[in-house]
Amino acid sequence: MALTEFDIIRRWFTPARAGAGVRTGVGDDGAVLAPPPGRELVVVTDTLVEGVHFLRGTDPADLGYRLLAVNLSDLAAMGAEPAWFTLNLTVPAAGAAWFEGFAAGLGALARRWDMDLVGGDTCRGPCVLSLTAAGTVPPGQALGRGGGRPGDGLYVTGTLGDAAAGLACLRGERRGDACKALVQRFLRPEPRVAAGLALRGLASACIDVSDGLAADLGHLLAAGGCGAVVEVEAVPVSPELARHEPDPERRLALALGGGDDYELCFSVPPGAEDRLAAAAEAAGVGFTRIGELVPQPGLVLRHADGSPCPPPAGWTHFGEAAG
Amino acid sequence: MALTEFDIIRRWFTPARAGAGVRTGVGDDGAVLAPPPGRELVVVTDTLVEGVHFLRGTDPADLGYRLLAVNLSDLAAMGAEPAWFTLNLTVPAAGAAWFEGFAAGLGALARRWDMDLVGGDTCRGPCVLSLTAAGTVPPGQALGRGGGRPGDGLYVTGTLGDAAAGLACLRGERRGDACKALVQRFLRPEPRVAAGLALRGLASACIDVSDGLAADLGHLLAAGGCGAVVEVEAVPVSPELARHEPDPERRLALALGGGDDYELCFSVPPGAEDRLAAAAEAAGVGFTRIGELVPQPGLVLRHADGSPCPPPAGWTHFGEAAG
Repeated sequence: MALTEFDIIRRWFTPARAGAGVRTGVGDDGAVLAPPPGRELVVVTDTLVEGVHFLRGTDPADLGYRLLAVNLSDLAAMGAEPAWFTLNLTVPAAGAAWFEGFAAGLGALARRWDMDLVGGDTCRGPCVLSLTAAGTVPPGQALGRGGGRPGDGLYVTGTLGDAAAGLACLRGERRGDACKALVQRFLRPEPRVAAGLALRGLASACIDVSDGLAADLGHLLAAGGCGAVVEVEAVPVSPELARHEPDPERRLALALGGGDDYELCFSVPPGAEDRLAAAAEAAGVGFTRIGELVPQPGLVLRHADGSPCPPPAGWTHFGEAAG
Repeated sequence: MALTEFDIIRRWFTPARAGAGVRTGVGDDGAVLAPPPGRELVVVTDTLVEGVHFLRGTDPADLGYRLLAVNLSDLAAMGAEPAWFTLNLTVPAAGAAWFEGFAAGLGALARRWDMDLVGGDTCRGPCVLSLTAAGTVPPGQALGRGGGRPGDGLYVTGTLGDAAAGLACLRGERRGDACKALVQRFLRPEPRVAAGLALRGLASACIDVSDGLAADLGHLLAAGGCGAVVEVEAVPVSPELARHEPDPERRLALALGGGDDYELCFSVPPGAEDRLAAAAEAAGVGFTRIGELVPQPGLVLRHADGSPCPPPAGWTHFGEAAG
């Protein structure tokens, strides 16, 4: 592991906390970790590429935050308690200030979830940032995509569509008072780690919404071998998005098709409403029922009165995602 | 984890071997792994960037092999048994053939060491390849850089300098009959995993030679707070390199300064010669004593007769590495 600019980042993390199971951290050929006895390990990894996942000129603190947040979101979807991570940073010629900023954004989120940086490298090159994270679960209790069954209620955490609107604001395609808040949702998504923990033993299936609700729900349905009916009026949007986009159809397109919200979408067998309310309370985020799983494959949109809802205009990926 | 081109790679690995501790492999938001009870986990990670670590146009099979090999070399230096790995592949528009080739090179080496691919992603972008691997060790038995003490013998596995000469051949800077074998040493380094395992409980410190012997030995010395005397005639070179570069000084420059050999450099307390011979036998590679650790910091080069040896000409990094 190359240690030069990496030392700048490392300063935000070392020394690894005693007793946290980190026997050797950054600075040798590898990290030595003592996994907590009787737990399973959940491993996730994700890459951010400049021009694909973020715009050139993004504040390095936002990049550091986001790189960890998208991985924490995967841990959340698995119901895992965050533990440690490694970093692979390929960046163009950048000064110490870039690494300081990056480490500040990353470090603040890592501390919130008590995570150790245990290794990594920095290289000179085009901006490509990877992070691999691990968490733990009690044996057999990891959440997965494949457990949903017809009759299960379908839920999401928080609200959807803000991040896509925020990205459009950043690109200058949208304007308005709400842009600042929406941009913040894009730059600093809140990984739903506490929700994932609260859903262990309760959700039958779970996935995080990174590519848009319809696309990610499509993965959950495919893995479970079932379909879903979603009531479009029930899909939760923020007050900011409601104000920013008054047209219901365009708002729906953002909420169903917009990625980057990093909320959780999950299914729960019938009869667990009380436990679900307690879980939402524990997680500190709203859980909204948006529909239910059905035997027929595919995604069907309905209005509250039961009438069919055509896919919103401008949402070209609908057919693909629903298939 | 994006699954498209990744599916091509995945085909070389799935299904994860039953009983190998992989509860959920590629295809969910994360992998679920059951660490073997009573073992510590060793985690390593390394990135290859086109134009920095490999030349444009390199055969994807060689890239796949090399990406895993450099990480296996880190596991070897820690004395860890390889277990699983994740991949982050950012590649320019590439056809299925690229991914097939990459997976073939990677997969052959992974099978040799019985490793599972448990997750990863593929993105479109400039060619940046990261791999994060884990292995296991009995508690407290991981090798490290920091345990070397004055009086310990200093050893290397195999031979040094071939890969640097091979890279020069690839670049057209060197020619000759031996080029083919030397290029192969650069493209397909042999990670010394078996040697690392055999050195557990025997070596006081260990590091892999990725940046050149002097540079990596420098890390080992710094971590141990000591220095070393190296007898230059003892530094092992291959018959191919001896034939290819008859000038002793230029050959020494390659052996001390050339990176990419991925041999192990390690120290052993006095009195363990018999056990060391048995370990080399078990590892199937030669261990060569090149000198010993001394109290004075820094690296001193000597001839067999004890006379001082000046740093070889053309080896500009000497002062830096020796400091």
